[in-house]
Amino acid sequence: MAESTALPLVLLAEQFARLPGIGMKSAQRLAYYVMGMSDEDTKAFCDAVMNAHSSVHMCSVCMNFTEKELCPICADESRDRGVICAVESPKDIAAFERTREYKGVYHVLHGLISPMDGVTPENLKIKELLDRIAAGGVREVIMATNPTVEGEATAMYVSRLVKPLGVKVTRLAFGLPVGGTLEYADEVTLFKALENRSEI
Amino acid sequence: MAESTALPLVLLAEQFARLPGIGMKSAQRLAYYVMGMSDEDTKAFCDAVMNAHSSVHMCSVCMNFTEKELCPICADESRDRGVICAVESPKDIAAFERTREYKGVYHVLHGLISPMDGVTPENLKIKELLDRIAAGGVREVIMATNPTVEGEATAMYVSRLVKPLGVKVTRLAFGLPVGGTLEYADEVTLFKALENRSEI
Repeated sequence: MAESTALPLVLLAEQFARLPGIGMKSAQRLAYYVMGMSDEDTKAFCDAVMNAHSSVHMCSVCMNFTEKELCPICADESRDRGVICAVESPKDIAAFERTREYKGVYHVLHGLISPMDGVTPENLKIKELLDRIAAGGVREVIMATNPTVEGEATAMYVSRLVKPLGVKVTRLAFGLPVGGTLEYADEVTLFKALENRSEI
Repeated sequence: MAESTALPLVLLAEQFARLPGIGMKSAQRLAYYVMGMSDEDTKAFCDAVMNAHSSVHMCSVCMNFTEKELCPICADESRDRGVICAVESPKDIAAFERTREYKGVYHVLHGLISPMDGVTPENLKIKELLDRIAAGGVREVIMATNPTVEGEATAMYVSRLVKPLGVKVTRLAFGLPVGGTLEYADEVTLFKALENRSEI
């Protein structure tokens, strides 16, 4: 931003630019937008940020974000505690819940192993997962990390620690996305779809 | 967001989604990002929002955003007060200042006439511009609104009010963008470039 811009606006734009997926141009536009907001709207926005940050913490069991001691899923008596779906982040839980088919519980790892970004296994909630399994009653752990290099590495790492505890470890299936076309499938996905073909 | 998501997070995502150019998916990602921010970073972010909103107001002369009574440009004695460049928003001033060629002053209209969006001439800072001209000393008003339907309509509207005051009104030139190629120029731009051709 040029010298003609008021300093608080420059500082605000810099704050917006620190958020993921927001470049300097968008950050400037957002800063100018805030100038046009009413006092009430501005306060409501800041209150929402501070409130979410202060009142939301991790579920003591599955590490999902919640306001209470237990998240709604861990508190739900009807969920099958014998199956744990291990995911990278809380938003992945929302994706699984949308399927309305999964009746087990979750465990949020809060990241994926990525030595390039300085994320080691110690930074993830792996110990908490092993503690849950050690407490007993768990039959299966579904590794539901993304099908990326980091997601695969994390799934392999966690499975090697979980298997010796006598628990079945599974991985999400690879294949063609439903509604997709063969033409646009990449070769690795197509190979996986071929490899994992099932009889009809 | 699904029921599994903590309410303050949903409310925060809704606040982000109200900002321009941020959809519900991005808003959710931003809300989750805030959860991972440190207490200091979260406070710094909110302080920047509140500070920009409370300490920045409009320059009493040109309506640009500033912390002081006058913006740096209106306070600059070396600028030519006889030429006023009328723009839609404060960020357009930054664009002109980057050229380092314009030595006049500005007037921010804070919007464009757009009956479809309920923006009438009374919503813009047109009266303030006419008052500046009435105070005397202005030789030229450059209408520097965007080359869109709303920008053109606003330029025409303002020029009809300014001309009777005996002040020259000009419009930014239309033509090919520097560094662009003929192949990708739209027909209206190309027609304008042809119409406004100059001898070499």
